[in-house]
Amino acid sequence: MSSYVIGVDYGTLSGRAVVVRVGDGATMGEAVHEYAHGVVERTLPTSGARLPHDWALQVPSDYLDVLRIAVPEALAASGVPASSVVGIGTDFTASTPMPVKADGTPLCEVPGFADRPHAYVKLWKHHSAQSHADRINAVAAERGEPWLARYGGRISSEWEFAKGLQLLEEDPEAYAATDIWIEAADWIVWKLSGAYVRNACTAGYKAVYQDGRYPDKDYLAALNPEFTGFVEEKLAGPIGALGARAGGLTAEAAAWTGLPEGIAVCVGNVDAHVAAATAQATRPGRMVLIMGTSTCHIMNSDVLAEVPGMCGVVDGGIVAGLWGYEAGQSGVGDIFGWFVEHGVPASARDEAAERGLDLHDLLSERAAAQPVGGHGLIALDWQSGNRSVLVDHELSGVIVGLTLATRPEDIYRALLEATAFGTRTIIETFEASGVPVGDLIIAGGLAKNAFLMQIYADVTNRTLDVLASAQGSAVGSAIHAAVAAGAYEDVHAAADAMGGVQRAVYRPDPSRKAAYDELYAEYVTLHDYFGRGVNDVMHRLRAIQRRA
Amino acid sequence: MSSYVIGVDYGTLSGRAVVVRVGDGATMGEAVHEYAHGVVERTLPTSGARLPHDWALQVPSDYLDVLRIAVPEALAASGVPASSVVGIGTDFTASTPMPVKADGTPLCEVPGFADRPHAYVKLWKHHSAQSHADRINAVAAERGEPWLARYGGRISSEWEFAKGLQLLEEDPEAYAATDIWIEAADWIVWKLSGAYVRNACTAGYKAVYQDGRYPDKDYLAALNPEFTGFVEEKLAGPIGALGARAGGLTAEAAAWTGLPEGIAVCVGNVDAHVAAATAQATRPGRMVLIMGTSTCHIMNSDVLAEVPGMCGVVDGGIVAGLWGYEAGQSGVGDIFGWFVEHGVPASARDEAAERGLDLHDLLSERAAAQPVGGHGLIALDWQSGNRSVLVDHELSGVIVGLTLATRPEDIYRALLEATAFGTRTIIETFEASGVPVGDLIIAGGLAKNAFLMQIYADVTNRTLDVLASAQGSAVGSAIHAAVAAGAYEDVHAAADAMGGVQRAVYRPDPSRKAAYDELYAEYVTLHDYFGRGVNDVMHRLRAIQRRA
Repeated sequence: MSSYVIGVDYGTLSGRAVVVRVGDGATMGEAVHEYAHGVVERTLPTSGARLPHDWALQVPSDYLDVLRIAVPEALAASGVPASSVVGIGTDFTASTPMPVKADGTPLCEVPGFADRPHAYVKLWKHHSAQSHADRINAVAAERGEPWLARYGGRISSEWEFAKGLQLLEEDPEAYAATDIWIEAADWIVWKLSGAYVRNACTAGYKAVYQDGRYPDKDYLAALNPEFTGFVEEKLAGPIGALGARAGGLTAEAAAWTGLPEGIAVCVGNVDAHVAAATAQATRPGRMVLIMGTSTCHIMNSDVLAEVPGMCGVVDGGIVAGLWGYEAGQSGVGDIFGWFVEHGVPASARDEAAERGLDLHDLLSERAAAQPVGGHGLIALDWQSGNRSVLVDHELSGVIVGLTLATRPEDIYRALLEATAFGTRTIIETFEASGVPVGDLIIAGGLAKNAFLMQIYADVTNRTLDVLASAQGSAVGSAIHAAVAAGAYEDVHAAADAMGGVQRAVYRPDPSRKAAYDELYAEYVTLHDYFGRGVNDVMHRLRAIQRRA
Repeated sequence: MSSYVIGVDYGTLSGRAVVVRVGDGATMGEAVHEYAHGVVERTLPTSGARLPHDWALQVPSDYLDVLRIAVPEALAASGVPASSVVGIGTDFTASTPMPVKADGTPLCEVPGFADRPHAYVKLWKHHSAQSHADRINAVAAERGEPWLARYGGRISSEWEFAKGLQLLEEDPEAYAATDIWIEAADWIVWKLSGAYVRNACTAGYKAVYQDGRYPDKDYLAALNPEFTGFVEEKLAGPIGALGARAGGLTAEAAAWTGLPEGIAVCVGNVDAHVAAATAQATRPGRMVLIMGTSTCHIMNSDVLAEVPGMCGVVDGGIVAGLWGYEAGQSGVGDIFGWFVEHGVPASARDEAAERGLDLHDLLSERAAAQPVGGHGLIALDWQSGNRSVLVDHELSGVIVGLTLATRPEDIYRALLEATAFGTRTIIETFEASGVPVGDLIIAGGLAKNAFLMQIYADVTNRTLDVLASAQGSAVGSAIHAAVAAGAYEDVHAAADAMGGVQRAVYRPDPSRKAAYDELYAEYVTLHDYFGRGVNDVMHRLRAIQRRA
């Protein structure tokens, strides 16, 4: 009789559960549950108090609802008997930290704290701790902190330290009442297993845990004397390897999910990173691009190098025993969506409607008929800032080469190409730093756009594999659960058996590759001009805009 | 009893006739006639032969139809008796030259030439003589020709010499059969009056007539030995001052128009330049902006200076006795129209339709609600190239500062502002060259966009007068006709009596002016980076596009 595992992927707006067969990774059933409170960006659900600009919170009980609703639904849909489920694994957005009491109770559920914004989960895209991140970086650079280079030279405002420092400085009472500052990824595992374990992935990428330790007290004191004890008091706790068993499913969690008490609960993980297992990219040099509204670049390597502008390199950050690299582009599908919504005329909408196409398809069809360079445009893909390799969210988008003959499909194509150039910039930066990058594996919603995929193959001069499953993260969590349950020796073996990609779906065309080389050279010139301080116009425009 | 004059404005697609009262310039009636052949850009009307790229021809008989149809219609509409009309004046697009026989017969009407494209009128926007213009400029620069600086250092491919050299080199037989190479502006006067007179405006601005002579034989020989006699053979003929009487209306032309034989026919003129009279800008330092699809900047001065990138400075080129300056922006209203047609989503179209607005008005309304700099954008207004001060039609448009929050009205406003910055660049170049520029007078179709006008006032820090008449050119021709008829001593006096502007309709706001100064500084940086060869990406993108 087959055994099965559950994977749960906690996204920005919903949680998705899948039931996966341990033997071959087949997905037997799935279900999605949308968070009741979604992303809390404007007003607090309790008091209705208005949140400041750039805040993004979540409500922890929403996460439990996914266990209560989506997991049983997925199980029912699969037809698999609960008794044959041997483990459960989860992945989460990150860095999505929250303040909890010593017993795991979220601070926002503690009497007296429900009306305090700082008592809630700070979602990854909570972006109001930039000034704290700036100080974190400045002080680290000044003191020559050795870990800074592991993050391409910059710690993000999205991460645990910036958000923790913001908590301290903006709501010292809530900070004082916080016993543990924990990633939601680890909190959910705690709720499932009763065990408090910090996963190696978020510890490394989001909490600056390097070579067995966090930043030291002197550094923390230099940020703010009140912050000196942050690591010792709020981050203390065991680090769990990815794919390890955190504990057994508690009776309470068994009741929520309908799963057998005591089955393996896997250590937490991050949505992008866990997909590497589904993509069978657990060995060096295979880069996974998780392409959706943004793109995350994930790759294992046996080389440790300091890659300028990467998000981070973490020992065992993706798979135990290898250096896990992460880089990213903050806007990709978001940019295409923005253009289609706001920059395409009624005539195109009418034609698309008449032909039963969506606007992306119509523009792709028109643009695909062009030769490389036929539109005469170069764009910079920074409408949502630049995560790698410039790590600058004050940058913005550019289009050069507009004429009265420019049509929407020209701009659309230039935007697709710009994101491909952005990925090529990341790849070339890795390689220039001594980290080889092989072929690419594409996961995420954009993988279905064949025109976009061919551009990526041509621009990067690489063969593209495509993830077989549309649910790369949830299946990745299930693969890790299988390891935690002891069904496989390690994540490599589990990924080989349960993951899957379609090989070489897109191959670079040599003549288009050569034509793109020429355009890429123009991209690089503009990238450096606008992005590396030659002309700081983008920063000045933002400052002018804020003043206005 | 009042007397009247006729003004006829020959535009790109149609000719417009107005009947104007001599005493006060009141427009009594008007009529428009569209050219039967419009602009001949694809196939020759006779043989159907396909024209090469960038050709733009016209058919001379279309111009006569305007005299036959629009003039009698305007007269009828005015209720003015033909017997009280004392003169007729005309203005034309330029440089719009044509090959004719010694008796004025257009070469395309000569047996055997009707099927030869080079036998037709080359409209101002015939742009296929760029390689000839390049040689004209290179050879002139090499030889240190003194007249080159009078044209900001560059002769345009639109002008008489480039088009004449193209005629010689591409159709030597048609060149040999050409007795006179004449502007349509002068040909129409010849048809009206029987007198062959070359007007001082086109002779100076379009045929390089400076200090009483054209370029010399040695120079012409250096371009092509066969071109040595071009001036002596094809351009010979008297130069007529603007506002002078060319001759009396012939019996034939009287029959066409229904006007009295023998009335004054004024020397020809150019559409933009003639509007200076309507704008009462016949004295130094009053700059007229004729704003439509493109903008022409026209100003008299008592200073002779070499202004880099101007279109030209001509003694008596606008009004006898003063230096007439011309500069221009090749795309203005064209750019706004392009954006509204191709870059505005269905949602805006739907809202505009619902509210009974046109899209320009809707976008202006939305954009006007913003503070200066609120959109965070800077654009370069080169979608149709740059006429002044860079004189480079291979340049293209740029938008910097795009984010996912950018909306169509933001881009629309940035484009309006970019054209205002383009005008400011021209004004500052004049002033830096020692030619003072006072307040501005706005003519042309864009004058009715109050939001755009206020931007121009704020950006240029100048008060804007607005032309009282919507028909600045046709009325300008009528004013010149009144001078030719002896009703006024000179164009100054006629303009004072017959022209008219609304004074100080728009005044700069000091705080917006200051805010725009900051954005203008960014514009200048990008202008020089992309336009003055620091990064020649625009030229390379064009080259790539042509190859593709």
